[in-house]
Amino acid sequence: MFILNNHNPVPLYKQLYNQIREHVLSGKLLPDTRLPSVRDLAAELSTSRNTVEGAYQELYAEGYIYSKPRSGYFVSALDQDAAPLSLSRNLKAHKQLPGPPAIFPFDFHPARLDPESFPTALWRKCYSDSLRQNSQQLVQYGDPQGDWGLRCSIQSYLERSRGVLCNPDQIVICSGLQQGLDVVAHLLKDHHSVVAVENPGYFLPRSVFSNHSYKIFSVPVRPGGLDLDCLKASNSTIVYVTPSHQLPLGYVMPVANRLKLIEWAEEGGNFIIEDDYDSELRYHGRPIPSLQGLRPQGNIIYSGTFSKILSPALRVSYLVLPSSLLAKYRQLYRDYFPTVSLLEQRTLAIFMEQGHWERHVRRMRIIYKNKHNALLCAIEHYFGSRAVVIGQGAGLHLVLQLPGSSLSAVEINERARPKGVRLFPFSDFYLSGGPESTTLLVGFGGMTATEIELGIKLLSQVCNCPDIV
Amino acid sequence: MFILNNHNPVPLYKQLYNQIREHVLSGKLLPDTRLPSVRDLAAELSTSRNTVEGAYQELYAEGYIYSKPRSGYFVSALDQDAAPLSLSRNLKAHKQLPGPPAIFPFDFHPARLDPESFPTALWRKCYSDSLRQNSQQLVQYGDPQGDWGLRCSIQSYLERSRGVLCNPDQIVICSGLQQGLDVVAHLLKDHHSVVAVENPGYFLPRSVFSNHSYKIFSVPVRPGGLDLDCLKASNSTIVYVTPSHQLPLGYVMPVANRLKLIEWAEEGGNFIIEDDYDSELRYHGRPIPSLQGLRPQGNIIYSGTFSKILSPALRVSYLVLPSSLLAKYRQLYRDYFPTVSLLEQRTLAIFMEQGHWERHVRRMRIIYKNKHNALLCAIEHYFGSRAVVIGQGAGLHLVLQLPGSSLSAVEINERARPKGVRLFPFSDFYLSGGPESTTLLVGFGGMTATEIELGIKLLSQVCNCPDIV
Repeated sequence: MFILNNHNPVPLYKQLYNQIREHVLSGKLLPDTRLPSVRDLAAELSTSRNTVEGAYQELYAEGYIYSKPRSGYFVSALDQDAAPLSLSRNLKAHKQLPGPPAIFPFDFHPARLDPESFPTALWRKCYSDSLRQNSQQLVQYGDPQGDWGLRCSIQSYLERSRGVLCNPDQIVICSGLQQGLDVVAHLLKDHHSVVAVENPGYFLPRSVFSNHSYKIFSVPVRPGGLDLDCLKASNSTIVYVTPSHQLPLGYVMPVANRLKLIEWAEEGGNFIIEDDYDSELRYHGRPIPSLQGLRPQGNIIYSGTFSKILSPALRVSYLVLPSSLLAKYRQLYRDYFPTVSLLEQRTLAIFMEQGHWERHVRRMRIIYKNKHNALLCAIEHYFGSRAVVIGQGAGLHLVLQLPGSSLSAVEINERARPKGVRLFPFSDFYLSGGPESTTLLVGFGGMTATEIELGIKLLSQVCNCPDIV
Repeated sequence: MFILNNHNPVPLYKQLYNQIREHVLSGKLLPDTRLPSVRDLAAELSTSRNTVEGAYQELYAEGYIYSKPRSGYFVSALDQDAAPLSLSRNLKAHKQLPGPPAIFPFDFHPARLDPESFPTALWRKCYSDSLRQNSQQLVQYGDPQGDWGLRCSIQSYLERSRGVLCNPDQIVICSGLQQGLDVVAHLLKDHHSVVAVENPGYFLPRSVFSNHSYKIFSVPVRPGGLDLDCLKASNSTIVYVTPSHQLPLGYVMPVANRLKLIEWAEEGGNFIIEDDYDSELRYHGRPIPSLQGLRPQGNIIYSGTFSKILSPALRVSYLVLPSSLLAKYRQLYRDYFPTVSLLEQRTLAIFMEQGHWERHVRRMRIIYKNKHNALLCAIEHYFGSRAVVIGQGAGLHLVLQLPGSSLSAVEINERARPKGVRLFPFSDFYLSGGPESTTLLVGFGGMTATEIELGIKLLSQVCNCPDIV
């Protein structure tokens, strides 16, 4: 009935287990059939009693067979209809790597960082220190809100450089903006259902709040930031804004509008989500101080990230919650655990405590300022008066308007690709409508100055000679 | 009017900026007041024109002042009511570390791992390799579903050791069970609103689904797993189960019940969430194969973790989604980013590819088996017939029933604490009701065999002599 093969690498007891299991599931062995005794089956198969005993124990533990005292083992009654049709593989895992993503020598993606910029040696050293100091801490979950030392480092950095005034217990370490917004969406959903977003604006907040069943209300962006009259006329009670560097248009919200926005929040019991995603990268003068610092006790949820200066692949960001939300946060997340690795949280804390972070910020500001200037020069040289540049002077991208272009942005993108030039579609930032004239988003973080110049040259050729391409 | 102090470490331009800003916000400088020219103010303050120019540029960039061509700078009209009452610090950050958590020499917490067990040297080596191989990848976000190589390693491990049959593209790398369940809650919420959970059962899934506005239906647990008749009689269309090692009671769901559960899912278009959190740790015979492997094409969402074998502080877990949910997943999470650091994902992938993971699993199984046996011996020795042990033979905890105890579990916990013995409250696992007799949850992962023995001795004294304590 059963066949054991000594040359098969599968252990004998498991061979037997597999065969009996298959007979039970296929119905070859009927329910309540008595199995041979261990001694008899071992003799029949010329194998040891341990082999049979091992197989029976497994089958028993999983419920394929049951036992009666002093009578031995019997086949369980299973629901044959629900049993798998075949135990052999009915799907074959295909493990080929999915086709590699197309590589563009001139990739103007707005979220690419300088490929040589990651401080590998320092990071390795800090990680190694973190591992040595914390190997005993790895046996438990850690603080759900994030490592205390890292929160202290972030608090003092934010106060010094961004004018954010908070206590470390208002800071929540998150695995990226999406997770931070998940937290915010949970915290506010009992009393809020409509979120206002900038249009054009970042698509991620729209996705996260939509996934949490919020209605999304889109507010046009003017050079002074989002249109406050439009916001006030809406029934939104939450607004997501990028006041220090509007994404994607690059505008700075002037302080008069900031104060009006704060007033809107205070009068209506509304909430402001301030996404301060890349404010370290301002190439003229000081970074613009945060909205939160104007009203530290207000209903302002501040969000910052390490993705733009250090690495988007590390997945570390943070929220500063207003004091008014802390009790609710603790109630909702009481049973939760941290979302970022303790080792990398501690690595980052060490990196900050030792002063590497602020040195790195300064270094990156210089690197990106040079790329930014190279891009402006190239645009001036190759586009001249055909192009209007918006949002220069900060961040990792700028916006190029081509008022006289006979080609749409989609057409330009399509024609640029075969030349190795990739543009991130500007239309992705629009929830409704679109720009009045042909508009391109030009990120410059991932390319060298030479590549930027060549890329803009190619792009200008595409835009210039639509019929030749 | 303004005072600059050369001995102040704050740069001169910033001192000037701060003073003008404060005058504007406090109303001392009225709207539309013309500021002195750069040349005049520089002369008045005996400072360089660069200092004044720098301050004006900052104030202009932030909107505190505006400019008229050929007339100079003017104070902006701000809403004074909304301006901060004082720019001086109105809250003082307190950075003292919150009081250290109480340390218990005999901590029977069920989620503590062996404090010496983390493979520090190997992990450092793999992290270092990961960093060397991927420093160029750190400039972008990476695959939102998780690193492909890690998903391939998990796929083949799950097939080999857990009988899970899937393709790597069904695997989603998550930052812990909570985040995995967040994904599931999002994926299913359009057509489902009631989740059945085991009672007693793990509290985290109840929290996550409640936070997503699902109704929670609690199903009693029997020695054969959760009560299927009760489940069928409910209006739940999702069930969260721990079939291979019920948390907290330790029961294994026999295959007959597994097949019935699968049939429940198939007939009603319902979903099973199989949490296979610690199935590697089975001390007699083979680990129990997964439910997913019985019906790889069914509506079974499989969840696994690295928290029990490697470290809960790393925050890496994974979901295996059924093929039927993949399209929806991609639609909902199209705009999202990964939730786990690329470097640690790649570290784990290297750790698995080089065979360290499976060696580590075997090592941990031996370490915890010895602790488990020491605990059983100690219970036998100090409690004898007063105690009934449930759920032994697997995992990192077992359940101790004390049918004749005159003390409640809460009383025992309270009396044990002064002796340095900490017990995780068993009642936290109950959504409703509670155990019939005094029941304790005894985790053994974090203590040595000697500590376990001493801890059980102390516990037996507490339980034995209620009046002396």
